[in-house]
Amino acid sequence: MHQSQGELRVSTRGKGLYEITRDVRKWAGGQNIKSGLLTIFIQHTSASLIIQENADPDVRRDLTEFFERLVPESTSWFRHTTEGSDDMPSHIRAALTSVQLSIPVRDGQLALGTWQGIYVFEHRSSPQVRQVLMHVIGE
Amino acid sequence: MHQSQGELRVSTRGKGLYEITRDVRKWAGGQNIKSGLLTIFIQHTSASLIIQENADPDVRRDLTEFFERLVPESTSWFRHTTEGSDDMPSHIRAALTSVQLSIPVRDGQLALGTWQGIYVFEHRSSPQVRQVLMHVIGE
Amino acid sequence: MHQSQGELRVSTRGKGLYEITRDVRKWAGGQNIKSGLLTIFIQHTSASLIIQENADPDVRRDLTEFFERLVPESTSWFRHTTEGSDDMPSHIRAALTSVQLSIPVRDGQLALGTWQGIYVFEHRSSPQVRQVLMHVIGE
Repeated sequence: MHQSQGELRVSTRGKGLYEITRDVRKWAGGQNIKSGLLTIFIQHTSASLIIQENADPDVRRDLTEFFERLVPESTSWFRHTTEGSDDMPSHIRAALTSVQLSIPVRDGQLALGTWQGIYVFEHRSSPQVRQVLMHVIGE
Repeated sequence: MHQSQGELRVSTRGKGLYEITRDVRKWAGGQNIKSGLLTIFIQHTSASLIIQENADPDVRRDLTEFFERLVPESTSWFRHTTEGSDDMPSHIRAALTSVQLSIPVRDGQLALGTWQGIYVFEHRSSPQVRQVLMHVIGE
Repeated sequence: MHQSQGELRVSTRGKGLYEITRDVRKWAGGQNIKSGLLTIFIQHTSASLIIQENADPDVRRDLTEFFERLVPESTSWFRHTTEGSDDMPSHIRAALTSVQLSIPVRDGQLALGTWQGIYVFEHRSSPQVRQVLMHVIGE
């Protein structure tokens, strides 16, 4: 049994989903683990990680718009507003999704379903560099 | 330290929660691990995994209806509609819950709380077969 | 490679976020693991675990109020009402967040981002004692 750790830096340019499936697969494939568990963790409170459909881009657009409407920037009663109108919605959208995902590794590969892609879900409007940690354990 | 992997196929017949606690417990109990960590992962983007109250069935009904109302099939602005009116809501409901859960194993048993049950949360209307992967590591 | 398990009891006094970062860090720091993965799991269906901003307390207040409005106690169509008007909203709020978090350990420390704190998100109004399990594996 062994483990290793790595990290990704993901540059984002506004709200939306940024696919990292290939980067995670590539890193995981180089850790000499045939069977195990991969965990990814994003070190932020205004961006999150989700697994979503990787086929029709409209899915990502609709998903982003849904969160835009569910937690509107224009919410009048927010107290935490000094960092911009997109900041408090970002924290809530991150809470509604997740900052961490664990995925089994089988036959040396990430065991994602056919339509599953891994995405950084950026909730801020301005460009950001997001830090994603990766941990894999297995043999 | 050792690990093992398994899978469950869960047949669903429309939206709602399908309990898999007993199946997961049974599999985990057969892996010869006294102490460790179990992870389950569903390989889909229109079904998810949640832990919910396992006592009153009304909890599951209310939960399902809440998600039905929060992300209505009748949403007029969805672009991704070619796979049916229940498809885009499915992706969003999966994003709002989770495709993965990790649960400690103690004394050879899943360390669930008294009222916690593990469920596949099916978001599609038509019958489906859902693939759930299981990974356990420990000793 | 080795692992260990522990638990925290967290007393809550009504809805809101209760920080446990220091307790988790302290426990993790005593397990003699330089590199690995920590998982925390809450054994309840009406409280959850989230990572949120640890700076401005208004973030936690706005977050709590958002969930209060998204899943109102006054919802007329809930069936599961015998345990109090705050019970069914609690289950839904737990489903919308998470009962489990996994965080990498690096250089003997939890690899949280600068602004990330770990919180028990209490959804019930009355005082509770919440059981949080901790598992760490690594070397």
